Amino acid sequence: MIIKKIDDVPMQDVKMDGAKDVKVRVVFGPADNAPTFAMRVFELAPGGHTPFHTHPFEHEAVILDGDIAAVTEHGDTPLDKGDVLLITPDEKHQFKNRSNSKPARFMCLVPIEYQK
Amino acid sequence: MIIKKIDDVPMQDVKMDGAKDVKVRVVFGPADNAPTFAMRVFELAPGGHTPFHTHPFEHEAVILDGDIAAVTEHGDTPLDKGDVLLITPDEKHQFKNRSNSKPARFMCLVPIEYQK
Repeated sequence: MIIKKIDDVPMQDVKMDGAKDVKVRVVFGPADNAPTFAMRVFELAPGGHTPFHTHPFEHEAVILDGDIAAVTEHGDTPLDKGDVLLITPDEKHQFKNRSNSKPARFMCLVPIEYQK
Repeated sequence: MIIKKIDDVPMQDVKMDGAKDVKVRVVFGPADNAPTFAMRVFELAPGGHTPFHTHPFEHEAVILDGDIAAVTEHGDTPLDKGDVLLITPDEKHQFKNRSNSKPARFMCLVPIEYQK
């Protein structure tokens, strides 16, 4: 059994095209021999966002802190702390911090083979 | 994209041998066509616990509320809200609500083929 506190996990910059002021902690991933899926926590600086993109795998996500909107081709949906999301494979999506002053965090899980 | 509030997901009794006063919400599972892994939220009544058992798949878990201990063959580990756990395949484990008065909740994810 591996027990961690999220804040103890090292944070790294997300350098993907289209990402703005995003950092990530890989909470459970290949380095932990997680067998099937990876747990990551993303931090968005004020005004930060992930890329508006698609990929052939799903996300399951949990809103942890802050004023986050989920963006799809149908528009923006503001989310509350504790909301959970399933983003299906090949669905265009983005997470956006709507605040100008406060950071925001969400947990996002993916199949392990997509966690580099 | 499917967005849910955990409290809106129907809760059902966990009737496994060795479980005491445990209920579960299947937040994302086969009914949502979750492709790879299932997200569930377990609620333990005061004094409630999951079975002390093993199985051939992993758990990734997040402590949401309450005074929960993770139990292994090496003893009990009290956990804080926000702690995350990786329980490896075939590792004996249990979640226990240490409180006599308050419920406790944790999120627990498993490979989809093990979510009935």
